[in-house]
Amino acid sequence: MKLLRDRALELDERDVLAKYKDEYELHVDDTIYMDGNSLGQLSKSARSAVIDTLDLQWGRDKVAAWDRWLYLCETVGNAIGSGFLGAEEGEVIVSDSTSVNLYKLAVAAVSVQKNRGRIVTDDQNFPTDRYILTGIAEQMSLELTVVHSDRDGAVTEADLAEVLDEDVALVSLSHVNYRSGGLSDMREINRAVHGVGAFSLWDLSHSVGVVPIDLDEEGCDLAVGCTYKYLNGGPGSPAFLYIRDELIDKLSQPIWGWFSTADQFEMGDLYLPKDGVGRFQVGTPPILSVAALSGALEPLIEATISAIREKSLSLTTFAQELIAEWLHDLGFMLASPSDPNGRGGHISLYHKDAKEINDHLVKRYGVITDYRVPDRIRFTPSPMYTSFTMVYDALERLRKLAMGMYKH
Amino acid sequence: MKLLRDRALELDERDVLAKYKDEYELHVDDTIYMDGNSLGQLSKSARSAVIDTLDLQWGRDKVAAWDRWLYLCETVGNAIGSGFLGAEEGEVIVSDSTSVNLYKLAVAAVSVQKNRGRIVTDDQNFPTDRYILTGIAEQMSLELTVVHSDRDGAVTEADLAEVLDEDVALVSLSHVNYRSGGLSDMREINRAVHGVGAFSLWDLSHSVGVVPIDLDEEGCDLAVGCTYKYLNGGPGSPAFLYIRDELIDKLSQPIWGWFSTADQFEMGDLYLPKDGVGRFQVGTPPILSVAALSGALEPLIEATISAIREKSLSLTTFAQELIAEWLHDLGFMLASPSDPNGRGGHISLYHKDAKEINDHLVKRYGVITDYRVPDRIRFTPSPMYTSFTMVYDALERLRKLAMGMYKH
Repeated sequence: MKLLRDRALELDERDVLAKYKDEYELHVDDTIYMDGNSLGQLSKSARSAVIDTLDLQWGRDKVAAWDRWLYLCETVGNAIGSGFLGAEEGEVIVSDSTSVNLYKLAVAAVSVQKNRGRIVTDDQNFPTDRYILTGIAEQMSLELTVVHSDRDGAVTEADLAEVLDEDVALVSLSHVNYRSGGLSDMREINRAVHGVGAFSLWDLSHSVGVVPIDLDEEGCDLAVGCTYKYLNGGPGSPAFLYIRDELIDKLSQPIWGWFSTADQFEMGDLYLPKDGVGRFQVGTPPILSVAALSGALEPLIEATISAIREKSLSLTTFAQELIAEWLHDLGFMLASPSDPNGRGGHISLYHKDAKEINDHLVKRYGVITDYRVPDRIRFTPSPMYTSFTMVYDALERLRKLAMGMYKH
Repeated sequence: MKLLRDRALELDERDVLAKYKDEYELHVDDTIYMDGNSLGQLSKSARSAVIDTLDLQWGRDKVAAWDRWLYLCETVGNAIGSGFLGAEEGEVIVSDSTSVNLYKLAVAAVSVQKNRGRIVTDDQNFPTDRYILTGIAEQMSLELTVVHSDRDGAVTEADLAEVLDEDVALVSLSHVNYRSGGLSDMREINRAVHGVGAFSLWDLSHSVGVVPIDLDEEGCDLAVGCTYKYLNGGPGSPAFLYIRDELIDKLSQPIWGWFSTADQFEMGDLYLPKDGVGRFQVGTPPILSVAALSGALEPLIEATISAIREKSLSLTTFAQELIAEWLHDLGFMLASPSDPNGRGGHISLYHKDAKEINDHLVKRYGVITDYRVPDRIRFTPSPMYTSFTMVYDALERLRKLAMGMYKH
């Protein structure tokens, strides 16, 4: 025990991101937050961006502040694109929710391939993705093929091999699985998808901000993602969408709102979509939430995604070691890929009593993890504000809890 | 001049809403804000709702605050419904943008009437409404019939009479016209729409919070509306949608996101929409913006919509009087219905040089109005924070500006 605790202290001392902890320390108590993949923490920079928007923009400048806000979703989209996605300027925009963005891009993709009749996803994909694709398939008389993938892993090219053919218009998958944390090889899958002439649409919600992504380089066609997890944009902060440059002007989205038009205040008779990825916006964006996101990105961009990933790998590797040492005997099993490079920023633990244990852990032991059906606990040491001693302390509390339940 | 100024002071003295001015006085300078129908002002209650959400919810409670946020859109929707729309509990929900809501409801309405081939709107309807309906018509192989209506008035039952027949699935109109301020008779139009068995879908963006509305009583089927105009919810605050109670379970929306499902965290294989209007939500709502809206509603609900309307009618009537007295000779004409009861909360002025005049008025005379193509200036004395002397002073500045341009 002593040795492992010393290891934690030593790792903390060498942690180049330790200096960011203060940025997120807006409220201190003895809970340990391990749920940053569900809701990232408030930062001082996000908070002050919101206060400025309230007081210096909406409050003082009123409607004139629209000069600043009108292209905010482009600006923040580009910051996400260059900081985290390996995208060129003009390929990413902040807009709507992940669900609405997935809908817009999926409809756009199948609409330009009317001769193809199928959409492919996997059975471990996040529910909203599967549901939205189901709805589109039903409404557009397409077939949705749902392949099986490993619940404790990630969807692979092999999972798709049997169903990919030239009738497939779109393959829509998650980069990191929301439950297992399993990380898919986008490059390999994109190659297979392009081999049959289909489009790929990636949901980056559980990877953006913790796993380096290079959408252009890895050959992704389309992507969407959430900004309130590792990007710390705040509850329900608007999502982003990515369209590979050469596809932008070939695609048209189904919801023809005024924010997608070429000359928004001309208010003409005909709908004329603007050039660029902005044509995938719809209505007026919720500026306070976009502002929070904008502020939240600052420390992350400064820290760099490569340093964030490096620390994330160390954190989950250390957690894995403690789990093996302390928790296997108490009925826990790692329900994530065992190779850290095959994971995103969180790990998943199987236990037959996962729901009950997670309840106790949160309510009585002050460790904030989350439960996912049917028998998983997700454990997320988000790199910007989590230390190695926090990982140690959190898992020690879990161990004590489980000892009390199973070893008396 | 003296007499009119005295009238303004007298009207201010009798103003029962004058006490709310302080609630909105977060920044004081010598500009006069007459653009509350574009962006309503920040209130102290909205500001403190955002600060609480930052500090006491996201910052302190973190992910546990979702216990409070998960039904916030229902709660705020019901507050809007009962306070401003004459809706029953469970008929209104806050969700997405007005544009996305219009899309969802219009698609839902035409999808349950597959035997009907047409959608009807008018050529003066707000651009995003016309564009979205155009997109739906194109994608679903329907015909969009655009009737002509009076640019300086409101769409009427007579405008629609010729095109209404049993092939019409949906009639989608604005309650108050965004440019003229003309107020339509929803009851009369709904009767005509129902006469041919079609659905009505109303955009309440320019009426909600300034004109009393009774959706149930007036026989509306569906409605959407913006919350950042007279409801003062803040830039891009999420919109609302209304579905008449008996229609809710008959309709299904196209974007099958997880916030619309019966048991969101069961994450099952099949999409099962929840009961009630919540099935028209999609993804995670932007909580900071919903919180601002929630706070913004408090003073409005306390003031009551009937008192707001009464003051609004007095304000625009007084403005109309000053315009007749001072501005007709300078080339201005009222481009709104002359009967105050035929208008919403703003009036529109025609001038051949409207764009140039509006620019000068804003930049050099500190009166914040807005220009709308091709030759209109919108003038909006929003009742919660506008006094009669402000109306007087604003129009006096406009008069001085125009005198300088046309009388030297």
